[in-house]
Amino acid sequence: MDFFYYPQPLADLIAAFSRLPGIGPKTAGRLAFYALQHADEATGLSKAISAALKDIRYCSICGNYTDSDPCRICSSPKRNREILCVVEQSRDVVALEKTGEYKGLYHVLHGVLSPMEGIGPEQLNIGGLLSRLEGVSEIVIAVNPTVEGEATALYLARLLKPLQIKVTRIAHGLPVGADLEYADEVTIARALEGRRPL
Amino acid sequence: MDFFYYPQPLADLIAAFSRLPGIGPKTAGRLAFYALQHADEATGLSKAISAALKDIRYCSICGNYTDSDPCRICSSPKRNREILCVVEQSRDVVALEKTGEYKGLYHVLHGVLSPMEGIGPEQLNIGGLLSRLEGVSEIVIAVNPTVEGEATALYLARLLKPLQIKVTRIAHGLPVGADLEYADEVTIARALEGRRPL
Repeated sequence: MDFFYYPQPLADLIAAFSRLPGIGPKTAGRLAFYALQHADEATGLSKAISAALKDIRYCSICGNYTDSDPCRICSSPKRNREILCVVEQSRDVVALEKTGEYKGLYHVLHGVLSPMEGIGPEQLNIGGLLSRLEGVSEIVIAVNPTVEGEATALYLARLLKPLQIKVTRIAHGLPVGADLEYADEVTIARALEGRRPL
Repeated sequence: MDFFYYPQPLADLIAAFSRLPGIGPKTAGRLAFYALQHADEATGLSKAISAALKDIRYCSICGNYTDSDPCRICSSPKRNREILCVVEQSRDVVALEKTGEYKGLYHVLHGVLSPMEGIGPEQLNIGGLLSRLEGVSEIVIAVNPTVEGEATALYLARLLKPLQIKVTRIAHGLPVGADLEYADEVTIARALEGRRPL
């Protein structure tokens, strides 16, 4: 008896969806059937993927994703060119931009130092950082406070200190709205350590 | 101050992902960045969508998704052509095929009767069902036991009874492995109603 599951193009589509992160076989099946039933949206997704892969590249200055080189931030005349904020990835730039508080430029490292995964300084966009320090008075290190992030922040601080540039680290402490009672010890320790006069 | 979020092709890609069911803006962002970082997989998905939309159509006999017409089930010489199983959608065919127990043919309705949503018999693949009854001795109705599904099952039963065809309904009762204690009342009532001599 030959039982029948999916016609090949549908099986391929399910497999393609299930290769995306966080999408298991059940969800992939649901998405594939949805795509077949909503041809317009599915075609839109297919075209959006092609267009993004074709048009999005790294900014040659800051390393952020952009469709024009240099990117809109690096080429904006309204930005303060004396401050550079160093982040791990493009998404962190968006998170910072959403605050509307930061007016300087960015530098995207594309990762953090991780000897376990074989990521050393050469694998990161650190050479690009060193080559754009002229006129920069402060570097704000905004990598995430993981073990690797801390190691990267220390590495950068040591690298930049001799160049007479002020190196700062964004504050870690209690998130706004969080309860002291439920915060973890490391966060509370960081909040105490970073206390400021009122 | 003009703040910067995403370059347009990336914003478009995030929007395209977020139009898929069950994918919110955060997940869409994650998927879009994943796609940019994994060009091979993203291209694969883009191509799989195009291929599926191009090659997958409905079988002209049973209404199931297929890449060849008639579909592999309808054209298989090993299938019992006297039994038709009526299901709501293509995915139900796969669910039944996976059991390896059913050897007959299928008929996909593409929905159930739902006056609330304006879905009447004309919107469903019922005409196709009536045109393929020659030589059929039994019709197994396997639509889901929802209110609309039950109404559809009753409608089909009344339509088919005068044609001297045996119409059956798949059993509803306790799922294998389920506890009586935790089952809902309707399921238990159905299980009692459908009891059989041992």
